[in-house]
Amino acid sequence: MAAHEPALDELIEALRSLPGVGQKSAQRMAYHLLQHDRAAAPRLAAALTGALGRIGHCARCHTFTERTLCTVCEDPARDPRLLCVVETPADQAAVERSGSFRGLYFVLLGRLSPLDGVGVGQIGAQALLDRAGDGVVQEVILATSFTAEGDVTAHALGEALKARGLQVTRLARGVPAGSELEYVDLSTLAHAFVSRR
Amino acid sequence: MAAHEPALDELIEALRSLPGVGQKSAQRMAYHLLQHDRAAAPRLAAALTGALGRIGHCARCHTFTERTLCTVCEDPARDPRLLCVVETPADQAAVERSGSFRGLYFVLLGRLSPLDGVGVGQIGAQALLDRAGDGVVQEVILATSFTAEGDVTAHALGEALKARGLQVTRLARGVPAGSELEYVDLSTLAHAFVSRR
Repeated sequence: MAAHEPALDELIEALRSLPGVGQKSAQRMAYHLLQHDRAAAPRLAAALTGALGRIGHCARCHTFTERTLCTVCEDPARDPRLLCVVETPADQAAVERSGSFRGLYFVLLGRLSPLDGVGVGQIGAQALLDRAGDGVVQEVILATSFTAEGDVTAHALGEALKARGLQVTRLARGVPAGSELEYVDLSTLAHAFVSRR
Repeated sequence: MAAHEPALDELIEALRSLPGVGQKSAQRMAYHLLQHDRAAAPRLAAALTGALGRIGHCARCHTFTERTLCTVCEDPARDPRLLCVVETPADQAAVERSGSFRGLYFVLLGRLSPLDGVGVGQIGAQALLDRAGDGVVQEVILATSFTAEGDVTAHALGEALKARGLQVTRLARGVPAGSELEYVDLSTLAHAFVSRR
């Protein structure tokens, strides 16, 4: 005997496709929507359909946008000589929220992962080289993740960009704000010592 | 300048209405759906619409069902002399999963909460008295939460049911399975001593 109704099972199953949502959370969400917040469900359904239908990629930097160019690429106040390379639109949004960068972006939509068969061709490297070689960009800031794959990506892209005579930098690696040294991992601490200033 | 696109903001806002989902999780979910799992979004939208449209309450026990009567109420193998009173359809599903009850259910869809203005009239008490007084039910098992509000609800309903000559029981209170006594809270331990057998 099924403990649930088919429509309820389908909803729970669909909610499980959200990242970080397991069986228990999905059940809780489904019961919550049905019992306490029935108005939220059609709102969420409409937002999902709307977002999927309307949001594509910026023709210039490849982040998410509803138009041809995203807000940042369209902004004449941004410095076109600086190009920040990030892995995902979420990373781009994070840098943007920090308010510490006034140039333009290039979103790779991936990173090198040789073990998974993701090579230079799959992460838009050629598009980046074309974009960075427009004659306006002077410095490319590699802001890929500080993981093995992100580092490999930064290294490969950096070499190709330097070969074209561009200035290439990488975000500083070191102790994050608010950390107590005792709890900082050894690799971070070693990097912070090497890069001391 | 908005960091996001309107459709993306709407999706993030709609995802935040799910229980346990804050701004950060909602952003992560939205970016995941847009970048990594675009097929999941229409599936989720359809499941939401389907569940809301098709799922109503069982005419007999008030749990969620797509038909007039739920699977449990329709099952002739269940013992109609036992009636288990729970607060929510989620509680009913949890008891059902435990496989420890073969009678029928009555879902209150709430519990007494005098401070929030939820009185006996709001939680279907009269419907429960009518249901339990059908001449078949012999024992009513009160399985409301073991919280102050759940206890008050059980007490109020228990008094009314006993006044009609029905046998009323409450789930056993005690030390949960897998607990070490050292870490059991004092109230639970005190109850377990009083109810020792």
